[in-house]
Amino acid sequence: MPLPTIEWEGNIEGRVRLIDQTKLPTELKYIYCEDVKSMWHAIKTLMVRGAPAIGIAAVTGVVLGIKDIHADNSEVFLKELKNVTHYLGSSRPTAVNLFWGLSRMERVARENLNRPVREIKELLLKEAINVQNEDKSICRQIGENGAKFIKDGDGVLTHCNAGGLATADYGTALAVMFKAYEHGKKFKVYADETRPLLQGARLTTWELMHAGIDVTLICDNMAAHVMKLGKIQCVIVGADRIAANGDTANKIGTYGVSILAKEHGIPFYVAAPVSTFDLNIASGDAIPIEERSSEEVTCGFGKRTAPEGIKVFNPAFDVTPAKNIKAIITEKGVIEKPSRESVQKILG
Amino acid sequence: MPLPTIEWEGNIEGRVRLIDQTKLPTELKYIYCEDVKSMWHAIKTLMVRGAPAIGIAAVTGVVLGIKDIHADNSEVFLKELKNVTHYLGSSRPTAVNLFWGLSRMERVARENLNRPVREIKELLLKEAINVQNEDKSICRQIGENGAKFIKDGDGVLTHCNAGGLATADYGTALAVMFKAYEHGKKFKVYADETRPLLQGARLTTWELMHAGIDVTLICDNMAAHVMKLGKIQCVIVGADRIAANGDTANKIGTYGVSILAKEHGIPFYVAAPVSTFDLNIASGDAIPIEERSSEEVTCGFGKRTAPEGIKVFNPAFDVTPAKNIKAIITEKGVIEKPSRESVQKILG
Repeated sequence: MPLPTIEWEGNIEGRVRLIDQTKLPTELKYIYCEDVKSMWHAIKTLMVRGAPAIGIAAVTGVVLGIKDIHADNSEVFLKELKNVTHYLGSSRPTAVNLFWGLSRMERVARENLNRPVREIKELLLKEAINVQNEDKSICRQIGENGAKFIKDGDGVLTHCNAGGLATADYGTALAVMFKAYEHGKKFKVYADETRPLLQGARLTTWELMHAGIDVTLICDNMAAHVMKLGKIQCVIVGADRIAANGDTANKIGTYGVSILAKEHGIPFYVAAPVSTFDLNIASGDAIPIEERSSEEVTCGFGKRTAPEGIKVFNPAFDVTPAKNIKAIITEKGVIEKPSRESVQKILG
Repeated sequence: MPLPTIEWEGNIEGRVRLIDQTKLPTELKYIYCEDVKSMWHAIKTLMVRGAPAIGIAAVTGVVLGIKDIHADNSEVFLKELKNVTHYLGSSRPTAVNLFWGLSRMERVARENLNRPVREIKELLLKEAINVQNEDKSICRQIGENGAKFIKDGDGVLTHCNAGGLATADYGTALAVMFKAYEHGKKFKVYADETRPLLQGARLTTWELMHAGIDVTLICDNMAAHVMKLGKIQCVIVGADRIAANGDTANKIGTYGVSILAKEHGIPFYVAAPVSTFDLNIASGDAIPIEERSSEEVTCGFGKRTAPEGIKVFNPAFDVTPAKNIKAIITEKGVIEKPSRESVQKILG
């Protein structure tokens, strides 16, 4: 079982327990947020990261924030609630899921202004737990839908971290592995370390080890050799954004892995919730690729490993064309041979 | 012009100047070895590394060692010379080129025992300089033979460090770039950082920058994306061992790059001296692949970057099949479409 990344504990007077991801992989440390300030700090300092997990941090953070609102009527309560959401929104202003979560909570309050404040508070707690449970349910369903692709004795390669740490618990690509494991399948995972930020080495290995799944760490440039040795029977990765035709943007290196898989006749799967699809984007060519700072490559580990003044190209993502993807595994079903038509069929 | 890695300075009473490679890439520091002890120390502590460079360290180290031999006759001199070679041999007992260099010097002394000691000493200095010059000449010829494959405006990808730092000065894959640059070609180089030991980030970038060649550092997993962007027109790498049919063992990751090059229609070249061929090995399947310690992957940057106890697979090399190689560039000529027959034709 993967460990819950972020979870509400107790009733309306409760607290949030979350894994301090800045301490991983050398230490498993839980942070308990008892008030909205400590949640603001946890988001700000990246103790909690990953789009769905930040959404949960937002909604549970709002519940922490309303503990101390002692408003006489619901109008005053709503005004004070907005102070709370405004404050939480300032913790990481570019995180889309943060604002998605905050506005979802505001809507619940607005739609229940005819109720007593005590009841609105209970409804907000319920909504926060709903958000948490929806995420759990989506991830579990992705896992269930994909588990059949892992067979007994398989070696599974993954790249970066599409794991529980970015969500409530199961993640996306890792959900498939967690579910296959729960079904009693015996398999090995090879985790690419994923330069420059080493999400594979730091997070994926840690999650799989904790779940009891057999995992081996390799450097990104070892994947081809491992495939040639016959150790890999399928590749499963997550996605950052998927175009209408199935072209998939994911962590830099994913595109290369898809080519290596094709060369060795190994099926390549993407696991992602339907919320990852951006149907306004016709194909991968239109997905913008963020370039990040050279220091991530030259001084990533507290020590300079390249000459001063060296030019660096550091794209954060690449695009895997749909033709390299055997199937996209979503909570609504599996999109085989991704194309505009097959994507449309599952997304409806 | 690449900087000389290791070089004899002056007459028989001279010294050896070498680049302290343990200080790269943050500092260019020269070490001057005035006696055999300091050369022993330089080899032992990896200030000088790379097979051909170690061969030069051996022969110039012997010249340093015989400075202080004041033997009356050549028989006594030979005996004392053997103490010197024995001592130098203890610095890095697994380095084949070290013993190759030492026995080459012993042979010169043995074959000239009829001469006065003073003359034998001069012959030994001459031999040491020969070894140095032979290496320079081989590397330059590889460079000349390969330079035509780089065209004006090209982007060239290389992996690991097949550069001058492992040889007297020009290296193998980098010799091709140095020569193309000398011929006035304008091109850009992309250097894979080459995990886990980062020879690309630390050494290749440094050498190319110092030679004035436009070089950009990327992580290994970015090569596919860079190719897709149309930035690469050829790949040139070195080799650790080449089988009789042209299958080539080189630094881990090379095989993957060869697949990515094929996918994007980019020619893939290997540059290596004929001494790299092992004609006793029929194909790449018979080349043993060294596996190295997990710490290189988990704690490579002075900081632990993966969980304690994680399993690691760390092969140091992989094998690129001859079919993925457009040509092997040697000092004796270019082996197009490498095969048992085409290799035989050039090697004679």
